[in-house]
Amino acid sequence: MNAEKNSKRENASSQTDRLVRFMHKELAGTDPLPLQSSLEKLHAADIADTLARLTDEEREKLFHLLDEKTAAEVLDDLDSATQAEIIEDLGLAELADIVGAMPLDEAADILGELEEDELLSVLEKLESDDSQEVKQLLTYGEETAGGIMTPEFFAVSPHETAAQVTDQLRQEALQDEIFYVYVIDTGNHLLGTVPLRRLVTAPKNQPVQELMRSDVVTVPADMDQEDAARLAVKYDLLALPVVDSEGRVLGRITVDDLMEVLEEEASEDILTLAGTGEEALENRSVLSLAKVRIPWLLLCLAGSVLSAMVLERFNATLSQAMALAFFIPAIMAMGGNSGIQTSTIVVRGLGTGAIRPKQLPGILVREMRVVAVIGILCGLLVSVAAQLLTGTWIFGVIVGLSLASAMAVAVAGGVLWPMLCNSLGIDPAIAAGPFITTTNDITGLLIYFLIASALLRVFG
Amino acid sequence: MNAEKNSKRENASSQTDRLVRFMHKELAGTDPLPLQSSLEKLHAADIADTLARLTDEEREKLFHLLDEKTAAEVLDDLDSATQAEIIEDLGLAELADIVGAMPLDEAADILGELEEDELLSVLEKLESDDSQEVKQLLTYGEETAGGIMTPEFFAVSPHETAAQVTDQLRQEALQDEIFYVYVIDTGNHLLGTVPLRRLVTAPKNQPVQELMRSDVVTVPADMDQEDAARLAVKYDLLALPVVDSEGRVLGRITVDDLMEVLEEEASEDILTLAGTGEEALENRSVLSLAKVRIPWLLLCLAGSVLSAMVLERFNATLSQAMALAFFIPAIMAMGGNSGIQTSTIVVRGLGTGAIRPKQLPGILVREMRVVAVIGILCGLLVSVAAQLLTGTWIFGVIVGLSLASAMAVAVAGGVLWPMLCNSLGIDPAIAAGPFITTTNDITGLLIYFLIASALLRVFG
Repeated sequence: MNAEKNSKRENASSQTDRLVRFMHKELAGTDPLPLQSSLEKLHAADIADTLARLTDEEREKLFHLLDEKTAAEVLDDLDSATQAEIIEDLGLAELADIVGAMPLDEAADILGELEEDELLSVLEKLESDDSQEVKQLLTYGEETAGGIMTPEFFAVSPHETAAQVTDQLRQEALQDEIFYVYVIDTGNHLLGTVPLRRLVTAPKNQPVQELMRSDVVTVPADMDQEDAARLAVKYDLLALPVVDSEGRVLGRITVDDLMEVLEEEASEDILTLAGTGEEALENRSVLSLAKVRIPWLLLCLAGSVLSAMVLERFNATLSQAMALAFFIPAIMAMGGNSGIQTSTIVVRGLGTGAIRPKQLPGILVREMRVVAVIGILCGLLVSVAAQLLTGTWIFGVIVGLSLASAMAVAVAGGVLWPMLCNSLGIDPAIAAGPFITTTNDITGLLIYFLIASALLRVFG
Repeated sequence: MNAEKNSKRENASSQTDRLVRFMHKELAGTDPLPLQSSLEKLHAADIADTLARLTDEEREKLFHLLDEKTAAEVLDDLDSATQAEIIEDLGLAELADIVGAMPLDEAADILGELEEDELLSVLEKLESDDSQEVKQLLTYGEETAGGIMTPEFFAVSPHETAAQVTDQLRQEALQDEIFYVYVIDTGNHLLGTVPLRRLVTAPKNQPVQELMRSDVVTVPADMDQEDAARLAVKYDLLALPVVDSEGRVLGRITVDDLMEVLEEEASEDILTLAGTGEEALENRSVLSLAKVRIPWLLLCLAGSVLSAMVLERFNATLSQAMALAFFIPAIMAMGGNSGIQTSTIVVRGLGTGAIRPKQLPGILVREMRVVAVIGILCGLLVSVAAQLLTGTWIFGVIVGLSLASAMAVAVAGGVLWPMLCNSLGIDPAIAAGPFITTTNDITGLLIYFLIASALLRVFG
């Protein structure tokens, strides 16, 4: 990010500002026609941005001016807080109409948020095919390939010709864009895929089985959505077919959903590292925001009390050399920061696949060599500072030695904790944030006062 | 992430392991034929994964077995460290052949890493058109829309019919996939785009100007790549046309590149928050890794020395009430963590566009209300702990009050610092990591000892 980028963002945001002002004005008037005609010209994503910033009343009024198809697109593009508010305003019949105009995967996402009885009554109002498919989609975990796939795809038999397939494509009314034609046998098993461009440029009478690629990358419905997205990035794919254990096509995930997954997962990683939930990015009540953060803060508080108890144990050492207290912040801050640097690299590397679990022992060795360099440098510097501030050489030795040791232990923990979590099947990001910092505080202080009491006993 | 996901990742990694073992064995033999035929069946991304784990000698041998097109794909898929090593091994003539088989945007990325004289001699060996276009691409900033676009696109005149365009498409030999046909006038100005599916299903004689959408989202060449990627996500686009100030098409950015940008930028944000560079995810030497991290650690060290000086100033207070030292860790850790929670939410929100700069004052108010809840809760808890540990009620009051105040100040800083950075055009992520923590340490300690010395003077 840089100044230029910020100014661009300002421009985009001032466009929305203009739009919001325009809507305020038009919605206050009585003639809906000019507003309706300008809504037709806007992209659903822009309407969604604007909608999120109107008053409740204006929002309801505006949303009712949209045709079903646009309403469906806008509803899908909204942030989840505004989405929930609009759904609450809508009657169930109206909601069923709008959801009926959505691609099935988006419909399932919306309906998955409803109460059981509301869900059932909306499902009743959908066409029975759609209703069946949405029910099926709702059985998959929210963060799996099944949870983001759409069961609508365009499939043909292997012996059909390019011209026949093109004719079928003309009659097909899928909601989502099509990038690949799926070639399946009578048992619905995926045989191969034909990119649209290949189809367009093929001789009319060529059967699709001669046009298709048969080494297709497929994913199972229970694969984690993030892994599916990374597969698509790795192989440059625009759509991933989702298949069952027998290789039968269940649906497909399109690239727009994959891009959203990447965004979502990156935010999740960042916020987990900071010890706060991804919900924090949306508008929530003060109490629910507090609730998300409190668990980590309480853990951290418990750690701090433990630190206090450690220090209390070394009361004698501390009274003997008061100035030791001055460098408690240095030990804590430097241990904390170097631990976070290492753990973040490890967690992000594991997350993106840049680091394989097998490489972790090698990374540990590398990180220990890095901390040898920076630990010695920082230890020497702080040692000089401590001698100058206290006027006593032994303080310099104690603080320098402790700082370097605390950094080394923190860096080792920065690899070992995520490694342990990974092998236990826990998200390493959880262990890498406040947990590591808290652990480092306690071990750092222990190291500091053990070294201090030992050296003071000998030289003090 | 969960256990299942980790086991899937293990599977993917054990596939690569098998492949690596197979390559070791085959490369030790003398007959390259079986190896060559199995290479033909592999996806370039898998070959790249394997290549990164072979010895230098094996890597060179294997790379020379690849045909030009595959070599081009593999080179593009490699991590930048392995890529650099392979390029060093190749002669310039060989490199020119491989680069000539790449899409021009990827060619420019590779050539941008070369020394001036090497670059010139490779450019000389390319076809003169390609060489001109690569030179042009190299003039754009690496992280801009121009830097990731390819100048190859498929464009037609508005009056051409669907059948004519399909014929042209058949003869077109673009390296990258095509999703949209661009309709341009004689001056190269973009009039509209036709999705491939629309073209396929249109009546043969229909002119493309009747098929095209004219409200096309375009981006200027100097737009930040992350903003371009977010535009594509917002509007669900598979390719973004890049235009000059007059609306003339310069090139296009395809979705695979946009997905890579999102990945890259997320890693950059995460690592910047942790105070370490994105280079850390790649294999680098110990010294260069240390160099990336040292600046933040030195800043933090300077802050710690400042903290030590603050504490030294309060020497009298500290000697009067030794137990104050016990809770230095609590003040620092809780201030630090709550500040990081808030600043991470703000920085990520600004990054993804979920928070607009104008909303920041509102977010500040919301965060202050959140910290009122959690600050009072944590303050009360620590107050009880402090009374129990020291046996003195006044310590409970001092520690509880200081903790809540330090948290409030840290949370306010967590919004205000990124806000300041944003308005100065500096990446807020830079200010949100170690910088905020260091600032919070010092202000937290100041608050603690000011409150302590005041209360001890009255009640002590």
